[in-house]
Amino acid sequence: MFTSITPEHIKFFKTILPANCFTDEENLLKYSHDETEDISYLPQVVLKPNTSEQISGILRYCNEHKICVTPAGARTGLSGGAIPVHGGVLISMERFNRILDIDEDNFQVTTEPGVITQVLQEAVAEKGLFYPPDPASRGTCFIGGNISENSGGPKAVKYGVTADYVLNLEVVLPTGEIIWTGANVLKNATGYNLTQLIVGSEGTLGIVTKIVLKLITHPTYDMLMLVPFRNAQDACKAVSVILNNGITPSGLEFMERDALIWTQDFLGETNVVIADDHAAHLLIEVDGFDSEKLMDDCSKIMQLVEEFDIDEILFADSRDQKDALWKLRRSVGEAVKANSIYKEEDTVVPRYYLPELLGFVKEIGNRYGFKSVCYGHAGDGNLHINIIRGDMDQDKWDNELPTAIRELFKEVVKLGGTISGEHGIGLVQRPYMDIAFDDKSLELMRMIKKNFDPNGILNPGKIF
Amino acid sequence: MFTSITPEHIKFFKTILPANCFTDEENLLKYSHDETEDISYLPQVVLKPNTSEQISGILRYCNEHKICVTPAGARTGLSGGAIPVHGGVLISMERFNRILDIDEDNFQVTTEPGVITQVLQEAVAEKGLFYPPDPASRGTCFIGGNISENSGGPKAVKYGVTADYVLNLEVVLPTGEIIWTGANVLKNATGYNLTQLIVGSEGTLGIVTKIVLKLITHPTYDMLMLVPFRNAQDACKAVSVILNNGITPSGLEFMERDALIWTQDFLGETNVVIADDHAAHLLIEVDGFDSEKLMDDCSKIMQLVEEFDIDEILFADSRDQKDALWKLRRSVGEAVKANSIYKEEDTVVPRYYLPELLGFVKEIGNRYGFKSVCYGHAGDGNLHINIIRGDMDQDKWDNELPTAIRELFKEVVKLGGTISGEHGIGLVQRPYMDIAFDDKSLELMRMIKKNFDPNGILNPGKIF
Repeated sequence: MFTSITPEHIKFFKTILPANCFTDEENLLKYSHDETEDISYLPQVVLKPNTSEQISGILRYCNEHKICVTPAGARTGLSGGAIPVHGGVLISMERFNRILDIDEDNFQVTTEPGVITQVLQEAVAEKGLFYPPDPASRGTCFIGGNISENSGGPKAVKYGVTADYVLNLEVVLPTGEIIWTGANVLKNATGYNLTQLIVGSEGTLGIVTKIVLKLITHPTYDMLMLVPFRNAQDACKAVSVILNNGITPSGLEFMERDALIWTQDFLGETNVVIADDHAAHLLIEVDGFDSEKLMDDCSKIMQLVEEFDIDEILFADSRDQKDALWKLRRSVGEAVKANSIYKEEDTVVPRYYLPELLGFVKEIGNRYGFKSVCYGHAGDGNLHINIIRGDMDQDKWDNELPTAIRELFKEVVKLGGTISGEHGIGLVQRPYMDIAFDDKSLELMRMIKKNFDPNGILNPGKIF
Repeated sequence: MFTSITPEHIKFFKTILPANCFTDEENLLKYSHDETEDISYLPQVVLKPNTSEQISGILRYCNEHKICVTPAGARTGLSGGAIPVHGGVLISMERFNRILDIDEDNFQVTTEPGVITQVLQEAVAEKGLFYPPDPASRGTCFIGGNISENSGGPKAVKYGVTADYVLNLEVVLPTGEIIWTGANVLKNATGYNLTQLIVGSEGTLGIVTKIVLKLITHPTYDMLMLVPFRNAQDACKAVSVILNNGITPSGLEFMERDALIWTQDFLGETNVVIADDHAAHLLIEVDGFDSEKLMDDCSKIMQLVEEFDIDEILFADSRDQKDALWKLRRSVGEAVKANSIYKEEDTVVPRYYLPELLGFVKEIGNRYGFKSVCYGHAGDGNLHINIIRGDMDQDKWDNELPTAIRELFKEVVKLGGTISGEHGIGLVQRPYMDIAFDDKSLELMRMIKKNFDPNGILNPGKIF
């Protein structure tokens, strides 16, 4: 279906990128995977351009020659979006690593996609500005990848997701044209929203080369508490109770018992004492500009959670303690990964239905014989369900589990939710798209893909 | 190009809508225009369905017979989006007037599109919930129209625009299929964002029949002040000064001298004394949950604006005074319309460039010989520029003014802005789309239009 790379093609790529065209084993191996389970496909060549024009030249050539191209960011993705499943060209965006302009007058930043999210956050924070979306991998992921997957993170409950901050994008289309999708403005009623069509399109419609983001004023205070619940469903219920009482925390994270235990083991740190009867924890952060107001919020939250069967609340007293707790939360994914073969489902439902979803996960686990460790951004109704292989035999894992996952996703959609909140569909959730969308919607998406990429060369095998 | 309506067609429409198919003169006249300037085109038949299935039946038939269809809401639009420029069928959405479900648990509302925005706002406010987007016409416009045009309004500066609240849409496609675009969730990384593609598409891609909106907690306090500036550009400058000092008002509105004078004349009310040296006013609202905090914000704002050449600040002391000031602001559009033949340009720029934009408007007015009255949502950089016909002769109005508008829009785009912030492109801004987008982007939009509407029957003559 796609043209396999020949020495002739390599020769051409070297005319554009004499020093940044790689076919050595080390590079091919390095770019064969992202953080998704244990999936790996080798590209045939790795290119590391650093201008839009170079990418335009590469795509134009690949489009003419029907060579497939997979764009890759920091490859921290969890749905396989950056894996070159059909081989061909892998374009690494790592050299697009410059923050181009922090516009303090207009609260905007223009950046290249290969900047690490945390680096971007820290650079704007120095000017008193705030870019809130902060996926767990913010210390390693690229802002460009965040845009491809419409990343969320803990702060989404108060501040929204990546999509909410993207004003304008420079995109190189699979056919080589370079376009800007919108304008650098806070409101826009001019034509179809190409910007939001690109956000979350997982590198299948074009390669983003410049990004204009909205910023807000950086909050000056934050407070953090960890609440141990003796019943996991209670912890889920408390989420809606807090929000429905008019408090909007800047983080409202749920972690099941095992998630915390495994993570402390993984990190070799035991900051948190987990009693035998702790079933789950909520990590709750509030932020703002007025420390008294935050104290009030904290007392109100305490009153509300004390209505449930909880153990003593742990308050983080210092920046170090806060950092330690957030490190714990941010490391859960890695810890689970290190612990067992697993599959992670990134479900999201209207948040009031979280207890119901959690109950269903356990029930279906009992029926199919799998254990699960759940955690996630409970304030958004976003539950990461880690299905643990444990001692399930290969046949069941390969053949029965997909049926269980279908059943789970159907329940999620029945609750008004969908199959990915922030990880994307990529490679691994593709088989389940028919649960989230009817045939006609999928047909429309496929048609849109064809408009942008008539030969289907860009990131094939993803989403559909 | 389109099939003209015959008695045979009417017979068919009457099988679907026996009591809601109209061909009388009164109805045809009524639905021949919206609030856009003095433009009017008669439809051949007006249909008033109230179920998705009826719309599906109508569209399927019209698509087969190549009959063009214009959907209309409350027809308060300012870009001609609801005007049936090619005659044919007009579908009025007025009977889709039910709020279907206020979900207090999940902070969501499901509504039909023909509900008046203010009615929806008041219904959810009764439950302590807040739907912020509030176009000036909120007392008469439909929520469905707000979605079609991605409406803004004064509160956008703090709370965002319509698009920011739309979670999921039921849409009848021009080919008759009924789809849901997304899920009822706060974060979504599942496939292309069809929801945001429909928002702002001005009824050209499908007819929205159900809407799921996100809600937030309703603020409990607000304070309002009116600040008279002796220099209009100073008023524009003050906007960025306030925001860049960490205060986010819930309204930050700019009105030139004539806007206020004409509106007080129009309303026959003189609540505000406008001295001879008042060049422009800022109407500034703050809201929140803590009245002391709001007092602090107000003092801080006062300090900041006092750095400019201002006259005495008017504080609204009571709900009545607040309502009177907001009525004044909301009536500016109507007042300008009543005063003279005019053209309204809905420009938006990064807000720091507002003074520059205002200066350019006046300069270009001098050059081309037109007067302008400017007002708008200054906090978003959204300036409504009303070009006043006054005593400009018809030939200049028809032939020279479009050149001036092109020049203006080019300047707006040069500043990083675009040609419509919240009114949409519709009919009247169509000729200027090439200024906002390059050929390839426009081609992509046209292809998307064709995906949804292969025969081009739905709202033809708009956007492109």
